[in-house]
Amino acid sequence: MASQPKDVGILAMDIYFPPTSVQQEALEAHDGASKGKYTIGLGQDCMAFCTEVEDVISMSLTAVTSLLEKYKIDPKQIGRLEVGSETVIDKSKSIKTFLMQLFEECGNTDIEGVDSTNACYGGTAALFNCVNWVESNSWDGRYGLVVCTDSAVYAEGPARPTGGAAAITMLIGPDAPVVFESKLRGSHMSHVYDFYKPDLASEYPVVDGKLSQTCYLMALDSCYKRFCEKFEKLEGSSFSISDADYFVFHSPYNKLVQKSFARLYFDDFLRNSSFVDEVAREKLAPYLSLSGDESYQSRDLEKATQQVAKQLYDAKVQPSTLIPKQVGNMYTASLYAAFSSLLHNKNSSLAGKRVVMFSYGSGLTATMFSFQLREGQYPFSLSNIATVMDVSGKLKSRHEFTPENFIQTLKLMEHRYGAKDFVTSKDSSLLSPGTYYLTQVDSLYRRFYAKKSG
Amino acid sequence: MASQPKDVGILAMDIYFPPTSVQQEALEAHDGASKGKYTIGLGQDCMAFCTEVEDVISMSLTAVTSLLEKYKIDPKQIGRLEVGSETVIDKSKSIKTFLMQLFEECGNTDIEGVDSTNACYGGTAALFNCVNWVESNSWDGRYGLVVCTDSAVYAEGPARPTGGAAAITMLIGPDAPVVFESKLRGSHMSHVYDFYKPDLASEYPVVDGKLSQTCYLMALDSCYKRFCEKFEKLEGSSFSISDADYFVFHSPYNKLVQKSFARLYFDDFLRNSSFVDEVAREKLAPYLSLSGDESYQSRDLEKATQQVAKQLYDAKVQPSTLIPKQVGNMYTASLYAAFSSLLHNKNSSLAGKRVVMFSYGSGLTATMFSFQLREGQYPFSLSNIATVMDVSGKLKSRHEFTPENFIQTLKLMEHRYGAKDFVTSKDSSLLSPGTYYLTQVDSLYRRFYAKKSG
Repeated sequence: MASQPKDVGILAMDIYFPPTSVQQEALEAHDGASKGKYTIGLGQDCMAFCTEVEDVISMSLTAVTSLLEKYKIDPKQIGRLEVGSETVIDKSKSIKTFLMQLFEECGNTDIEGVDSTNACYGGTAALFNCVNWVESNSWDGRYGLVVCTDSAVYAEGPARPTGGAAAITMLIGPDAPVVFESKLRGSHMSHVYDFYKPDLASEYPVVDGKLSQTCYLMALDSCYKRFCEKFEKLEGSSFSISDADYFVFHSPYNKLVQKSFARLYFDDFLRNSSFVDEVAREKLAPYLSLSGDESYQSRDLEKATQQVAKQLYDAKVQPSTLIPKQVGNMYTASLYAAFSSLLHNKNSSLAGKRVVMFSYGSGLTATMFSFQLREGQYPFSLSNIATVMDVSGKLKSRHEFTPENFIQTLKLMEHRYGAKDFVTSKDSSLLSPGTYYLTQVDSLYRRFYAKKSG
Repeated sequence: MASQPKDVGILAMDIYFPPTSVQQEALEAHDGASKGKYTIGLGQDCMAFCTEVEDVISMSLTAVTSLLEKYKIDPKQIGRLEVGSETVIDKSKSIKTFLMQLFEECGNTDIEGVDSTNACYGGTAALFNCVNWVESNSWDGRYGLVVCTDSAVYAEGPARPTGGAAAITMLIGPDAPVVFESKLRGSHMSHVYDFYKPDLASEYPVVDGKLSQTCYLMALDSCYKRFCEKFEKLEGSSFSISDADYFVFHSPYNKLVQKSFARLYFDDFLRNSSFVDEVAREKLAPYLSLSGDESYQSRDLEKATQQVAKQLYDAKVQPSTLIPKQVGNMYTASLYAAFSSLLHNKNSSLAGKRVVMFSYGSGLTATMFSFQLREGQYPFSLSNIATVMDVSGKLKSRHEFTPENFIQTLKLMEHRYGAKDFVTSKDSSLLSPGTYYLTQVDSLYRRFYAKKSG
């Protein structure tokens, strides 16, 4: 019988993103957009995408295998496997069942969990489910494993440069270096059509970018308010930005992350003006009288808050922005890729720090929650996680596509989406050893994958 | 701060199925099938289906509203809402976010949970997630709410009579009349293409009926083996059919339920021949030498086991078969509709009984788990749940469609699936007061519902 688990959280992580990428600056030029529209306007540097040999299943097969190997986890030690994704390849069969192939090999078919679905929030739902399982009476002493996998692609137009692709894996158990502060959690869920995928035959979403941004910021406000209330009830003192060392955001594009942190800063100012310094109080005073709606629309407020929050942004947010800026929107994996960036940039120095996470999924579902970090024991230590993920190595070994080749790839993928009876090029030359890739979809839509030998 | 919860399980339930139905006997005649093919061969009596004014969203809106009203639950008291479904209307936006409309009205937007997806297993995943949440450190003292909602429709052909439609709601919390035996749980998960939905533009699945049946029985064997092992480890004595009072199965069609119970009986015989009586031992002896594969295919074995297990089937299984036989396959709701049938038929007499549940989802994911039942306190009592569900009343007030009208309805639904920019007939004349129905899908695919006034 397993004893009552303590300090449940993330023991280990790995990340995979396709090596195929396109520079945002090149895309800007190709699209005839004004200079800086994608790089400064969106705040994005580069975008990863799947070619015809990769998809959310292959990426997650790669990421799960890699985590098990690099942390030397016996597949029999996994008791729950949860997948978060909003990239639908089959409307009934879960991605989790594809991943079972990796566990069946060693005879472990006793693994709970399925796929969690709600836009970019599915990964957070999967993570919460795994943590709750470990803390529940039905826990059998084994590890949980969370997989977030998505390929974000958009129809030609303004949203296209906000794509991306990645899979993240997280091992869940007690005595973790990344511990949940379980009682500090504020959610905001409501019925909105800001981004959705009702055209079932197309991989592309229906997006109202402006509405989605407002929904994101409103949900952020609401979650932060609840998070602060819960903190105050629990700790008997008020919460402000200064009570956390880092803030990590779901990152559709970096500009929204900048706006979001500035928004939290404005929220602090509204809650208690002494939370911000005198210069900021003066700068923000003119916006005190704005209604909620006005405040979401005011460019002046946006500018003013970003300016006064700039120094704090650089210290508390910027270290988590690397991968989202380099890889793009990874939907369910986005928040955890941002967190991976923080681990990569700050690793051991994070011990003793509090990290606030904000997860957002259109439709909409959003939660703010927090971690307490500590170095942990090898192999489940902050420094080893950073080493295993090898973010620099993965970013360096990428292959740049021209915008023309990128667009050509997306055209091919449009035809392939939902199709049957085809073989791919089986060209794995751009992939690293150990990467899974799609070889064939047969006449019954069954998908076949191979693993590039090492 | 919430105290450590005890006896977590199902506090309350409600069920909704469309009042529109077709008799299997009439369908048999219309299809030119041999007499008894659907009624005896499949074991089905009647099938419910959605007309153009109902879908999985409207059914779940109806079922959630009904549960909250009938048990007098303040919507603010819900802290987690989980949906299980395999009927995809949108590939990104969850059904849960549609249901948030019911809670936003009273200002409760702090509700965790999303949709769980894997064929017919999603409801069980949602249920486990809710129970684990109540038992976790992040529980905030409020109720969990599980919704299973599906519309099962098939292309013309042999699978069509195995359709059905329903939504089930279950309220989750401590001190429940239906308590989970959390440590008794055996799962079997693997990668199979027995039933899946890869044709994204069609509502119909790709089905290999024979393979799916074998997968179901193999998963049943595997789960039962693990369930027995865990029981033996925990209790220090062996488990056999005699240790549970009722067995409830996921019910695509009743014949499979008959086969499944017979299979468990055969498993008991194989594990320890003294688990079965002398007559059965003699009858089953010739099949001892069959390999696993052979045993799944042997019609003689099937016949022999069903015969020797008949009396036990009538006592331990038959009381749970009413709604699945009358309504059809309800996918994620099927297992819980079977359990509702048991509550309906046996209500208070179930106090003190153990019920074994078998959940199966193609692809595949399966779990055997068990409940301990007790009368509980009103309104969360076995007898009140049976009263609230009013299964007899709902079955009696249905409207029979002719096979021709049923087929015509399905044709219309084929065109409507994934479509935009249309209004429905808005004809709610066949629906009970309080039922939600679809009125319009606009040019942006946004769906609008109305509630029939009471």
